[in-house]
Amino acid sequence: MFDVLLSHIEDKVDLTEKDKSELQQFFTCKKLRKKQYLLQEGDVCKNLSFVSKGLLKSYMLDEKGSEHISMFAFEGWWISDFNSFINQEKAVLNIDAIEETELLTITREEYENLMVKIPIMDRYFRILYQNSLVTKDYRLMVFNSFTAEEKYTQFAEKNPDIIQRVPHNLIASYLGLTPETVSRIRKKISFK
Amino acid sequence: MFDVLLSHIEDKVDLTEKDKSELQQFFTCKKLRKKQYLLQEGDVCKNLSFVSKGLLKSYMLDEKGSEHISMFAFEGWWISDFNSFINQEKAVLNIDAIEETELLTITREEYENLMVKIPIMDRYFRILYQNSLVTKDYRLMVFNSFTAEEKYTQFAEKNPDIIQRVPHNLIASYLGLTPETVSRIRKKISFK
Repeated sequence: MFDVLLSHIEDKVDLTEKDKSELQQFFTCKKLRKKQYLLQEGDVCKNLSFVSKGLLKSYMLDEKGSEHISMFAFEGWWISDFNSFINQEKAVLNIDAIEETELLTITREEYENLMVKIPIMDRYFRILYQNSLVTKDYRLMVFNSFTAEEKYTQFAEKNPDIIQRVPHNLIASYLGLTPETVSRIRKKISFK
Repeated sequence: MFDVLLSHIEDKVDLTEKDKSELQQFFTCKKLRKKQYLLQEGDVCKNLSFVSKGLLKSYMLDEKGSEHISMFAFEGWWISDFNSFINQEKAVLNIDAIEETELLTITREEYENLMVKIPIMDRYFRILYQNSLVTKDYRLMVFNSFTAEEKYTQFAEKNPDIIQRVPHNLIASYLGLTPETVSRIRKKISFK
């Protein structure tokens, strides 16, 4: 499972053999069953987690107990309550496994040590966060100015894999729509 | 104006005297009058801009010509259409000056060269983007699950300076609310 992480890092930066052998010691393997929590709101998010296998979702619960999904994470993605991880404050997000999942986790302290010991990891995370900001800017724009139908169709075009793999009620939650609205839009699209 | 940038960088990482003298050559000074465009949608965002003085907003225009504001940028902030800058694609955002503004700008090519020449800048941008992701996560959460009143009151608590300095109709646009809704909430709060 460590190979998935190495290959993800080497897509973005060059690692020496020394870097590679040192990297592994910063990470811990963790397995989750389907529906198992990685994080519950109110706890501090102690780890940043790389998904080497499986699928998770992060979400907030509202007063009525409805899930508002903020992210899906597949193989090759990182997941956390990022504010909670960076500032070691209480998490507002819950994270649980949609499928059986394998993770490589790093603590807040080891995350800083990693960058000191292997400075090229600053570049890796700089590029990772740079890409993530592009994605989040796009998502904010969608929430700010798109209609329900535009939200769904643009998401479906950009994420055919998620549309295949994730139940539609979870996609509705991610888009801030009701399952009924998504159902209506899907019918309308298939009719076209 | 270069001192504002140096001090912002040195808040996050240590620079040598050599770093400092080399840094300046990567940046160009630019002044904007009030209401002047830094970027118009459809153009490619050629520069990442650091605000050394003034105030700008970035926004999308909808079909009716209404502005949907995605960001305000003060002294010490960076601004761009980040997707357009990183991927050199057409911008979807407009950026213009709310006040008279002074900027330090860096091109896409020089941004990469900067990181090669002064590797500690990878760390600076890693930390900058890390903080920016925390802020954007919070904003997505707000759009996803807060009521109009919660959006306004939380924003006002976190950004007393923006509430003072930015016209209320622009704050309404940033929060995805109508000016009338913001006005109603403000009255209700002051009544409390």
